[in-house]
Amino acid sequence: MRAEFSEAERRGVYRAIYERRDVRAQFLDTPVADQALGRILDAAHHAPSVGFMQPWDFIVIHDERIRRAVHDNFGRANREAARIYSGERLALYDNLKLEGILRAPLNLCVTCDRSRTRGHGLGRQSSPETDLYSTVCAIENLWLAARAESLGVGWVSILDFDELKSLLQIPEQITVVAYLCVGHVSEFGARPDLEQRGWEHRQELARLVHFDAWGAQDESRAGKLFAHAEH
Amino acid sequence: MRAEFSEAERRGVYRAIYERRDVRAQFLDTPVADQALGRILDAAHHAPSVGFMQPWDFIVIHDERIRRAVHDNFGRANREAARIYSGERLALYDNLKLEGILRAPLNLCVTCDRSRTRGHGLGRQSSPETDLYSTVCAIENLWLAARAESLGVGWVSILDFDELKSLLQIPEQITVVAYLCVGHVSEFGARPDLEQRGWEHRQELARLVHFDAWGAQDESRAGKLFAHAEH
Repeated sequence: MRAEFSEAERRGVYRAIYERRDVRAQFLDTPVADQALGRILDAAHHAPSVGFMQPWDFIVIHDERIRRAVHDNFGRANREAARIYSGERLALYDNLKLEGILRAPLNLCVTCDRSRTRGHGLGRQSSPETDLYSTVCAIENLWLAARAESLGVGWVSILDFDELKSLLQIPEQITVVAYLCVGHVSEFGARPDLEQRGWEHRQELARLVHFDAWGAQDESRAGKLFAHAEH
Repeated sequence: MRAEFSEAERRGVYRAIYERRDVRAQFLDTPVADQALGRILDAAHHAPSVGFMQPWDFIVIHDERIRRAVHDNFGRANREAARIYSGERLALYDNLKLEGILRAPLNLCVTCDRSRTRGHGLGRQSSPETDLYSTVCAIENLWLAARAESLGVGWVSILDFDELKSLLQIPEQITVVAYLCVGHVSEFGARPDLEQRGWEHRQELARLVHFDAWGAQDESRAGKLFAHAEH
């Protein structure tokens, strides 16, 4: 198979990685075209999976009544979550926009069937959680493909997942891995929202690199790896 | 921020997704250039993370003694894993190449520090496992960036992870998420190895799509989403 990427193809991959955002506030009403939805789901389906297990399913949610119920679920979970913050941090938290469930015209629930026998258990004896990890790889593929389609994606992690399963009629043995909001956007932020709003800043990568063993850090050696990085 | 991708940039993203392989047998000795390593680590570091937590660390392993010890670890874990198969399936299993630990010039261990306070716990109260999922997003970013650099990556899930942690001096509270082999390759297979060798085939995506609720499947409607998919 043709190995090398052209300069523009390579740039596309890095643009998707660096310009991908966790979108909450910038969704537009414009519907997502079926073909674009098909392409991002197919990108997800081509993620790596342990033993070629393909443990994922995708629930495509347009129904506004269901999205309203999910939004109510978020509201309750978010009030609960806010209770651990106080003072300035609480004020900052209350100002964050953490979901686009109703603003985005399309929601996706991505699940993992941990009991699926496809893949014949290969790789899961020593690493049973790799089925969940495979599903996350599918989500990241979808997210990057969406960026290339100029579609924004936001991952909502503040939900009561038991209630969500019951709402979406998801069977007991199926694990919800992610609830995503998908849609066209007015813009992609220049920086992650949480960085922009002062919630957290980006850590220096050289401090997260170890050589040959944990704790064997060498910032000067690591710095050389990143001397030409653009970000 | 500039939103639209050029046709070639968009093609690059889809090529990375469709031509990415879990590489085991095709590694070459050619060392991985520091700058390319820097770029794929930086791609990983720009993954989405819950609360902007950035819970990952990267251990860059070149040392051959360490890779030999990891390879021995794999050998034991693999003999154990093979015990669940018999007959034709065992013959098939024994024929699979499941790691490139010594063939690849570079190994990477990717970890998650679940106790990291960066991100101030945002999103993790209702979804505590999202720190692990963030780390997996980093791995998928790295994998796709590597494909754009014509570097192969293989994820080794058959290992005794307690023993691996001790070998790499990884502290108790740190979770190993992945052990990866990275290097230049003689070729990228046209199809996934496990499909090529008859271990498992690709499921039809239309069967994995539900509309508005679990079980609400409609293969004709789903089929329309994928009518123009190329893969």
